[in-house]
Amino acid sequence: MDGYFTPSFLARCAALAMILEVSGTPKPGNVDRDHDYAGTRYEDFLASAVGVYPVLEKACREGGIGSLILEASGESVRWQGGGNTHFGAYILLFPLLKAAMLGPPDRLRENAIDIVKETTVEDAVDFYRAFSVVDVRMKRPQDLGEAERALDVSSESAIDELRKRGITLYGVMQASSKNDMIAREWVDGFRRSFKAADKIFTKRRAGTMNDAIVLSYLELLAEEPDTFIVKKYDMDKALYVQGLAIDVLERRMTLRELSHRLYIEKINPGSTADLIIAGLFIALLNGMKV
Amino acid sequence: MDGYFTPSFLARCAALAMILEVSGTPKPGNVDRDHDYAGTRYEDFLASAVGVYPVLEKACREGGIGSLILEASGESVRWQGGGNTHFGAYILLFPLLKAAMLGPPDRLRENAIDIVKETTVEDAVDFYRAFSVVDVRMKRPQDLGEAERALDVSSESAIDELRKRGITLYGVMQASSKNDMIAREWVDGFRRSFKAADKIFTKRRAGTMNDAIVLSYLELLAEEPDTFIVKKYDMDKALYVQGLAIDVLERRMTLRELSHRLYIEKINPGSTADLIIAGLFIALLNGMKV
Repeated sequence: MDGYFTPSFLARCAALAMILEVSGTPKPGNVDRDHDYAGTRYEDFLASAVGVYPVLEKACREGGIGSLILEASGESVRWQGGGNTHFGAYILLFPLLKAAMLGPPDRLRENAIDIVKETTVEDAVDFYRAFSVVDVRMKRPQDLGEAERALDVSSESAIDELRKRGITLYGVMQASSKNDMIAREWVDGFRRSFKAADKIFTKRRAGTMNDAIVLSYLELLAEEPDTFIVKKYDMDKALYVQGLAIDVLERRMTLRELSHRLYIEKINPGSTADLIIAGLFIALLNGMKV
Repeated sequence: MDGYFTPSFLARCAALAMILEVSGTPKPGNVDRDHDYAGTRYEDFLASAVGVYPVLEKACREGGIGSLILEASGESVRWQGGGNTHFGAYILLFPLLKAAMLGPPDRLRENAIDIVKETTVEDAVDFYRAFSVVDVRMKRPQDLGEAERALDVSSESAIDELRKRGITLYGVMQASSKNDMIAREWVDGFRRSFKAADKIFTKRRAGTMNDAIVLSYLELLAEEPDTFIVKKYDMDKALYVQGLAIDVLERRMTLRELSHRLYIEKINPGSTADLIIAGLFIALLNGMKV
């Protein structure tokens, strides 16, 4: 409670980051204010963002990262029926919320790096439990080696295995970092989250909030393949989307055409959207106005 | 804290009600997810709704209605630059939040009726102070008689006058109820707020959340002239809009045509939107899912 920011301010920045992100339109392929998927609508994301508010605030005061992700996952599906809306966002937001309580914005990144390294085996256990709440698939079993397969979240023995092998949540993220760009943020010092924040902050100075979100999203998409697409389809599909985003930035295709194509093909770059949430959170606590 | 609901649940219902209302589209004439006004954008409403969360939660525990409206008005403009976004909504939500803490949903209306009658002169003073924060005009001076003019919120002596004459916030609402449909809710036992809740709840069973919001809004608009329009323009203009809403319900005009016309003419039925917020709040705490 003696931090540079209050829990209430930080929780509002985090909830608003989730709400602004899903509102940004067109954000090709993802749910936004003008695009629903059959099972998950815009309103589900809004309700989820508001519903987890108490867990966001709690994170500033207490609770392990794993148990917070578990609790947030439960709250989220209590407020809406669209399933997994913000799982990836929690993985980024909870360490950032705790880091923001430890000091001023210019220490945020180092503090977040310290916080993820301090996670425990119990954090990992709670994190695995959270999967069953929201039914997220972290890795496809066929992509795992024999040793890794025991850690696949769909495996019932995974939790026993975590304990036996003493694997912390940071260890889980290390193991996943090659194939998951959100896990990679933990290992990589939140490199792309802060990059997203810089993009959003700069673009907001020159244009509307919506433009800042959409253009930053497009640039992130053009920079690296989205691993949510890799897991749902394969790397070829992720590279295809990355190529299309580059086409839009280089004016060979319109944003509207890209948007239309990804919705038709049901390709949602969900992890890139999570980076935008983290970026918005960082930008808001640095004083960006909507 | 021994109430039927927790403060955190109620505050989330209230914030989500504000977010869902402004998201409902097309809500002819008002800001919504697809319509901004030059000075007030969709994102301003989202930021305001999230920004006031701590005041919504506080209202469940403590604070006079007037001081809560004053505090919420200050928080709202701290989070966005669009000016008055939710002033009318606060007038409805704060008594309803306090009422919801006192008992189960089937006692909500009677409890809210009791709560507004218990407001004090200090509530009235804080309420008048809140006006200067958000620059809302409750009445146009030219519409006031000599005695009433002393109570016009733009008058500097108004606060002294309130104290001298011992006028409570309930008294202010009584005096305004003829010309202001939000003030009328206090005097009328929140009649139209509960009517809005019934409409929304019933329509959500049969269709999407967005359809429930838009159709309920349209029906409210067709039932009574919006007094926000009366204050901004005049009664003729409000009756004109009411007539157009009836035309849409009776299929002589499309919703899209109505929407187009009101945005072009810059007529925003803001008080009807506030009733939708109150209705959504009541429906959410009665278990409606998004």
